[in-house]
Amino acid sequence: MTADTRQLILDTALRLFEERGYAGTTMRAIAAEAGVSPSNAYYWFASKDQLVQEFYRRIQVAHRDRSAGVLAGAGTLSERLMGVERAGLEVMAPYHGFGAAFVGTAIVPGATVSPFSEESAGARELSMEIYRDVVAGASPAVPARLAQVLPDLLWLAHLSVILYWVIDTSPDQERTHQLVDRSIPVLTSAVRVARLPGAARLVGQVGAVLDVVVPGRAS
Amino acid sequence: MTADTRQLILDTALRLFEERGYAGTTMRAIAAEAGVSPSNAYYWFASKDQLVQEFYRRIQVAHRDRSAGVLAGAGTLSERLMGVERAGLEVMAPYHGFGAAFVGTAIVPGATVSPFSEESAGARELSMEIYRDVVAGASPAVPARLAQVLPDLLWLAHLSVILYWVIDTSPDQERTHQLVDRSIPVLTSAVRVARLPGAARLVGQVGAVLDVVVPGRAS
Repeated sequence: MTADTRQLILDTALRLFEERGYAGTTMRAIAAEAGVSPSNAYYWFASKDQLVQEFYRRIQVAHRDRSAGVLAGAGTLSERLMGVERAGLEVMAPYHGFGAAFVGTAIVPGATVSPFSEESAGARELSMEIYRDVVAGASPAVPARLAQVLPDLLWLAHLSVILYWVIDTSPDQERTHQLVDRSIPVLTSAVRVARLPGAARLVGQVGAVLDVVVPGRAS
Repeated sequence: MTADTRQLILDTALRLFEERGYAGTTMRAIAAEAGVSPSNAYYWFASKDQLVQEFYRRIQVAHRDRSAGVLAGAGTLSERLMGVERAGLEVMAPYHGFGAAFVGTAIVPGATVSPFSEESAGARELSMEIYRDVVAGASPAVPARLAQVLPDLLWLAHLSVILYWVIDTSPDQERTHQLVDRSIPVLTSAVRVARLPGAARLVGQVGAVLDVVVPGRAS
């Protein structure tokens, strides 16, 4: 019953964020709409920020769960990434209307719900782990040099796909699916090219860029 | 005098968007704060959206103007891109506080101020032209095959840099400068690698991805 209340408050909040915008939705309004007292709502979530943080975390858990099959199986790097990206789009599909509000909240400098924030470390780690797993379990194996940059690079690419998905107004976000479909062959070719001796320096340079932008990668 | 009024309204709007957020700022409040009548404000800008659109366009004009020197000179691809990206960060520096509000507005699905919208075609074209120029004027010349994808790729990379800059809370956004500094060698190496015969297919595949996401590139 109490866990149900928590879920009800979260579901109500997501609906109101979508209908009225994040800034236009108060905790009191969420409580009223959910039919609980404000103090009950505040018992479960100290702020709207915590609601969005919980939403972000749940999406990552759902993404990992829906990717479990493809990650447990044997597959090429491309097959695994395709499976994981499709799983991600499936998990997010019901929340497309809320996407803009979420990104609008996450993009504020210092936002706790940013995928780059300290407060999001747990949710971020869940997501990054998926991409480490995509690379680690690939058959044939990804060369060691490349495996040092590829998981974080794929995580950043995933964030870019989500950004594009948010602004994608095509029916059922089919353009985003097209983007993913066409990006997979790029990955295949890039891995092949990265194996060439002439590409060693390039891989190292990509790592230096990741050190700047990926939280926890370099101190 | 009238052009001054237009500028005053725009400056006032940017300040209020930063202080109160985009949603929390009305055209009436902008007019009041600028000391003009609401009808005068509406004479110059039909909506808040038009104010942001005008801001977006001016940034592109300023970016082009500040890049003119480096684009007119002889330089390698890397030197030209470095000059252009530094010019972009300089032009945007005074607006860092407003950045989140701008992106929050642009990320709404169907937003007219999105860099991908029809309504932004003029501003987008100004920005894309800078990157076409970066590539076209490079010495040594960029191979023709690569020149078909590189300008649009650099434009997308520029959008990513802006996104990172918006959430960058380091002093004077020094992490974004680091990101740019470290990305330039990646470009140099990528161009070298793209010249290898084994990379021909990769370049074509990148073009197919750009066809999906870059407005006006493919029908």
